[in-house]
This record gives sequence, C-alpha cells and structure tokens, in this order.
Amino acid sequence: MSDIVALLRARLGDAVSIEPRDLDLARSDKSGQRTAHAPLAIVSARTVDDVQATMRIAYEQRVAVVPRGAGTGLSGGAMASRGEIVLSTTEMTRIVEIDEADQVAVVEPGILNGDLNRALEPLGLRWAPDPASRAISTVGGNIATNAGGLLCAKYGVTREAVLGLDVVLADGALMRLGHRTIKGVTGLDLTALMIGSEGTLGVIVGATLKLTPIPPGTVATIGAYFSSIEHAAAASAAITAARLRPAVMELVDELALASILQHLGLAARAPGSAHLLVQTDGDAAEDEARAALAIIAAHGGAASMTTDRVDGEAMLAVRRAMHPAMEALGTVLIEDVAVPRSRLADMFAAIRAIGERHGIAIATVAHAGDGNLHPNLVYTGDEVPDVVWAAAGELFEAALALGGTLTGEHGIGTLKRRWLADELGDDQVALQQRVKAAFDPRGILNPGKVF
Amino acid sequence: MSDIVALLRARLGDAVSIEPRDLDLARSDKSGQRTAHAPLAIVSARTVDDVQATMRIAYEQRVAVVPRGAGTGLSGGAMASRGEIVLSTTEMTRIVEIDEADQVAVVEPGILNGDLNRALEPLGLRWAPDPASRAISTVGGNIATNAGGLLCAKYGVTREAVLGLDVVLADGALMRLGHRTIKGVTGLDLTALMIGSEGTLGVIVGATLKLTPIPPGTVATIGAYFSSIEHAAAASAAITAARLRPAVMELVDELALASILQHLGLAARAPGSAHLLVQTDGDAAEDEARAALAIIAAHGGAASMTTDRVDGEAMLAVRRAMHPAMEALGTVLIEDVAVPRSRLADMFAAIRAIGERHGIAIATVAHAGDGNLHPNLVYTGDEVPDVVWAAAGELFEAALALGGTLTGEHGIGTLKRRWLADELGDDQVALQQRVKAAFDPRGILNPGKVF
Repeated sequence: MSDIVALLRARLGDAVSIEPRDLDLARSDKSGQRTAHAPLAIVSARTVDDVQATMRIAYEQRVAVVPRGAGTGLSGGAMASRGEIVLSTTEMTRIVEIDEADQVAVVEPGILNGDLNRALEPLGLRWAPDPASRAISTVGGNIATNAGGLLCAKYGVTREAVLGLDVVLADGALMRLGHRTIKGVTGLDLTALMIGSEGTLGVIVGATLKLTPIPPGTVATIGAYFSSIEHAAAASAAITAARLRPAVMELVDELALASILQHLGLAARAPGSAHLLVQTDGDAAEDEARAALAIIAAHGGAASMTTDRVDGEAMLAVRRAMHPAMEALGTVLIEDVAVPRSRLADMFAAIRAIGERHGIAIATVAHAGDGNLHPNLVYTGDEVPDVVWAAAGELFEAALALGGTLTGEHGIGTLKRRWLADELGDDQVALQQRVKAAFDPRGILNPGKVF
Repeated sequence: MSDIVALLRARLGDAVSIEPRDLDLARSDKSGQRTAHAPLAIVSARTVDDVQATMRIAYEQRVAVVPRGAGTGLSGGAMASRGEIVLSTTEMTRIVEIDEADQVAVVEPGILNGDLNRALEPLGLRWAPDPASRAISTVGGNIATNAGGLLCAKYGVTREAVLGLDVVLADGALMRLGHRTIKGVTGLDLTALMIGSEGTLGVIVGATLKLTPIPPGTVATIGAYFSSIEHAAAASAAITAARLRPAVMELVDELALASILQHLGLAARAPGSAHLLVQTDGDAAEDEARAALAIIAAHGGAASMTTDRVDGEAMLAVRRAMHPAMEALGTVLIEDVAVPRSRLADMFAAIRAIGERHGIAIATVAHAGDGNLHPNLVYTGDEVPDVVWAAAGELFEAALALGGTLTGEHGIGTLKRRWLADELGDDQVALQQRVKAAFDPRGILNPGKVF
C-alpha cells in the first residue's frame, strides 16, 4: 500500500498527508460513528487537476476513494477506512464568478455554504439551500447529499438550486454536466442524478448555482407552546392545509423542548410542553402570520409573534439549540425520516410508542412544512447499542408504513444501508447499482456507501 | 414481423391496432416532420399490466418500442417508423387520488395536463407545469420531456413538480421510483433522471405529482410595445435585474408580431413593432406591475396594464396566437434554444443576422424570464430545406457561444440529435449511453431518439 502513497506523492507532493491526526479525522463525521481503521492517505486537492490526478492513480491501481468535504454529514457517507484514499475538496474554496444579472454563481466545491451566502447577501441574493450545518458544511457536500434544511417547503432543496456541475469520474475524466441557463433538456439530466449521490458516481469539482433574490418585505416569527406534540403537529398540519406557506415551520417535542430549555437555562419559563415555531416572509408575511396565529389559538396553543428580526432570531435560537442540548444529554443517533405532512402526528405517536417499548429516550424535532422528522435516540458509550438500532429500524418501518421514506435529507451513507432495499426493493437496488457501474465500472468511488 | 403482431394480439387483444390510419398518425408529431415508413403496430395500453406485457414481448423478440402520449412533441421524439411497436398510454387517463391535505396527486400518464388542472382548480390547487400545449398534451408526455412553458421562471419546470414515478423498464419490470414525501434522498434520484429522458429509459405508467396552491391575490397584466425587439429585450432584462419576479414575461419579435396581428385582424393597431407581455401575481402583483411599468417606460415602451382577469387573458391572446399565425405563413421549423437571460438581446441579434444571411424568414417569441427562445423558421413544402437546417445549425452554435443550450424545453428527439455532441462532448454522450444501457441493455426503448 505504501506504493500507492508513493505514486500519489510523486504526482501531488505535499497535497498528500499520512499524518495520523489527519487520517484519524477522516474516520468519522458528525454522526458520532467511526470506522474501525485509519485510511491510507488524504489528498487535499487544490485544483481540478489534482482531483483528476488522484482519480487516475486510484483507477489504475484499483484503490477505493472516499470523496470528502467538511465531514459534517450525519450518515457516515464520508467516513474512510483501511486501504482507502480520502479525496478532500475543502481547499478548493474559490468563488469563480457571481453574475448578478443572470443570478448565477460559479464556485469551487469546498466553499462553505455560509461563506458563499455572506458574499451574496450585499447583492440582495442568496443560494437557498439552508441546512442546519450551513456555517460549517461545504457547497459540494450540500450537493452530494441533496441537503435540505429549514426553508425547503417554500424554497426547495439543493436539487432545485443547481444548474450545472463539473464532475471528475472514476477514471479521471472531467465532465461538464448541465448548463447555466434556467431551462435546458439536452440529453439525460445527469446533473440531477449527481445531486444526492453521496460520492458514489463522481467527485464534484465545480458547481453552477441558481441564485434567488432575498425575499423583500417583513419577516414575521411566531413562537407557540402546546400541551402536547400531537396538538402542535395538528396545528402545523392545519397551517399547511390552509394553504399558508411559511418559510420556516418547526416542531419540537416534549423531551427535546425540556432538554433545550434546560440547556438554555430557561427551564421554568415555557407556557407549554411542546413547541411550534413559524416564520413567514415576503410581502404577505404579516397577513400569513396573523392567519397562522388564529389557527394556533384554535388548536389550544399559546403564541407570541414579532416582526423584529432580532427578536425573531431569538425565537429561532430555541430550535437552533437542539444539537448542543442533545450533546449535553449523552450520545445521540440522529435519525431523519420523512412522511407525508398529514401523517406527522401519527409519526410522532409512533416514535413515542417505539421509545417506550424499548426504554429509550427519543427527542424529536421536525421540519413540519415538509414532513421531515429528526428523532434523536439518546444512549451512552461509544458504540450504538443493539437496542438503539432495533428502535431505529422500527422508526424506518413506521415511516415507510405511513407512506414515508428512510431519509429526508441526511442520506443513506453507511448507517442506513441495511434498510435501503426495504424501501426501494431488490430490483430497484440492482438498477441503481447498474447506473453506478456506468459511472464507476471498477467500483472504486466510495464503495460500501449507500449500496 | 407478423409474428410479433400475433404475439401482441394473443396477449393484448383489441388493444393492438394495425389499421393504416392509426399507424400513419404515429409517423408524425407536432414538429411538422414525418418518418419514412409506418410502424408495425400500435398498442393502446389500458393498464400497467398491458404495458408490462408489451415490453416483455418486445424484450424477448428484440423489437423496438416507441412510447407515445398525445403526439404533441416538437422534436420528433415520439415518431415511429418501420418495424417499431408504438406503445401509447393515452387511454390511461385516471386520476387515482388527489390528496388535498398533502397537496399530492397520483395520476395515470395519459391524462391531459389541462384536464388534470381543471379537476384541481375547484380545490384551489394546480400542477404548475404550463406548456403551451397543455390543453392537448399528457402529463406523461410533459414528464418525458421535462416540459416548460410560460410560468417556469417563477414556478419551475416539470422536474420540480414530480415526487415519484412508476416506470416499466425494457424487460417489463415495474419500478416505483421516488416517494410521496416532499423531501427524500434514499438512493440515487432516478425520478429526476427519468424526467426529460424522452422515452429512452422506460415507460412512465404512473406519476405522483407535487401540487401547489393557486397563488392568492390579484393578477396584473401588462402589454407593451417597442420600436424594436432589442429594446423590448433590454426592458425584460432590466425587469429581471430589478429582482421583480413576473409569473409570465414573453417577448414577440417584429415578424412574429406582424404575423399575429395580421392573423387576428388587428394589423394597424399596434403602437410599436415588437411586443413585451408581463404578468405578475401573488400579494405584491400590483406593486410589481407598477415597478415593471416604470422600467418599460424608461426603455421607450408604450404600455397598458389591467388587473381584470378577462382583459388580461385578452392581452395574452396575442402571444397565444403565435402557432396559428405561423401556420398561416407556411410550414415552420420551431426551434427552442435557451441562453442566460442577460444574453437575450444578443441572441435576437444573432437570429436576425442568420435569417438575413440565409434569406429565411425567422419569427421569434421568447420566454424572457428564463431565457428560452423559440425561433420559427418559415419555409414551404413538406421537407425541411437544407438551407433551413443550415440556419438552425447556426442558431444552435450561436446559443452555445452565448453560454446557452440546444433545447430549453422541447427535447432532442430526432431533430437535434446531430448537434447533441456539440453541446455535451463525445465523452459525455458516451456516459449518457452507458446510463441508458443500464436501463435498456438491448437498446429497444425509443432507439434513434436523443442519441
């Protein structure tokens, strides 16, 4: 294997690291999981040419490559193990072009979502994908996982915000997929296929992004408290059914809310045990917020509303404190099922029953506008206990039975691989593997992930 | 070949037609083109089972199949010729389910876009894709071509409005792709890959559609006239650059406008020789329309505005009369390039130069909000003259040189196949063909189309 490192070094020089500390970092992501062994080497590509050179060596030598951005994934998709080359694009951070007139940006994959949006904000533009990790996750990683976030119900997921991709294939060939026009149907839509492919089809080395104007007008924020998560979920479903289109609509269940309030030192102050957060924007923001307030009151919620942006951010802080609050509880397996919006209350009830049956604490938040729930299964120790996996498996079954899906926005990675065929069926898994083979005939791109 | 018909008849009975009139219809679409020979047979599938049975026979016997909806395509993608089976889904027209709470519809592929939207309208919902053919084109065909239309800049193309697809593969296997949740990233996004694949990957037999509320509030419509199309295009670019988001923004050049006004008997009444039509909707419709009016005036346009829906429809009638007006002029080759929005005026200038160079009349309309132009190349006779193909080839080159694409919304079909590699490059065409082979290893699905 040291031959491989020598080949990489000869071509890529000090872009190649075998420092134990560097290798160790690439064994994990933000899922709390970790591979059993360190990878062979890390290449920190500075250019497209570096990526092509790495892939050519790997192809020739039939060595596995794990493409990796900032390592903020939650499904193990970028974790690397023995004998694998980690190909990092985090040093490719340039904004190549921002075209204000056409509302298009061309970027390298390693730029952080937050950094890009900071550059766009003075122009009144934004790149809409808004994962909770935006401050620390890369645009390339957002694309590789079709990242979602808080704004998807109204503003779409990553797939809707990418016009074209430059991709290096397994054999080192560079493909320019898509276009920089708003519309285009020339050939198969390989750009869309790449989005969410978790590093199994190619390495994203450039992206042409569709920007959108930051919505004008007021932002109205509502924080509401209910006696139970079922009541809060019913209120959110009624808001959707009333055809209101909040930019943000988040549910926080009893255990999640109690943990967050504890963490924030606000334990005694909440006028209810479950939380619904609603934010409306655009020219009708205040009208929509007033309509939402009436629905919340009719469902027994106690709500306050503000149109002040700073006060609104303070209300959002409750939701944003979820991850640190969970870390204070213990280790968590963060799950990511999605169900049709009308089945949210049913899914919350199923989660409660599963937690009680297995004696596991499960704290759940949900993007209510698009039916995406994040149950956090709390445990202690380094390894996920079998009982937690058993509960997770039941969560997936419950979501599928409600017409839902295994993963709304985190991806399959390694953590959900064993359930993939439960949702897709064996025939579709085989079809997907044939498509992968069309891109990666030697099976060197992120093997063992997704499939 | 009569063996094939006998096999089809034995399994599908009177769903199989070899009537010369039926076979003749399948030789053409709305492109004005026609294949040299009649196909072998037409199967009018009534059920998914009929589609599977047809594909199993075709797979076994290695016979080509041309999936076909209403035949309203403009690129020859559904035209059939000697030895081919036409597989029509126009009899599969059921709305299986409309879920108001989740804003999801499940339909069979043969339902007309207009019929579906008529069923949705009383519920305050719509399926957003809005091709000009909506009254006569099927949902399945809209999906197979990723149809666009007038509303795309604000409301997206077909790809953004499809959650899941049921697809029969070349070997007759039924695949259920996607999901009915708003978000989902389980495995590769084969649903997105199917959209716009023009019958080359599988036969769409069912679709789970994302519905959206019909926007509340006023609709404001502006009809503006300019002294030249370049001035009108500059005004539309300025409206985009001002971050206004019209639902509809259409440009009509001098020849197109003169032909339309002639056709409508309004020849002497227009206060200018080129036309810009703008429609705004939603809660800020009137404010946005007033801002657009100011921009139009600053660019020398003479405009009128209405917030009356009937008067607004009358203004749209000018644009909608394009196709009949062209038919009155002679035969037309309708082209479909797209460019970045800021390059619209450049593309109009290029079209003018190409028309003059070749002595061809070219009448052009454009969806200005998304940079998609439809040059109509006028000629006489049944065959497209070589000079018209030469001019079309120069149009494509000009669009590519401006950062554009060969086809914004009509697809490649047979008519643009020879230019495919100019845009994608040989390597990407080869990759696309490998992906096709993963779905259709025997190459029986719509051979000779796209590739």
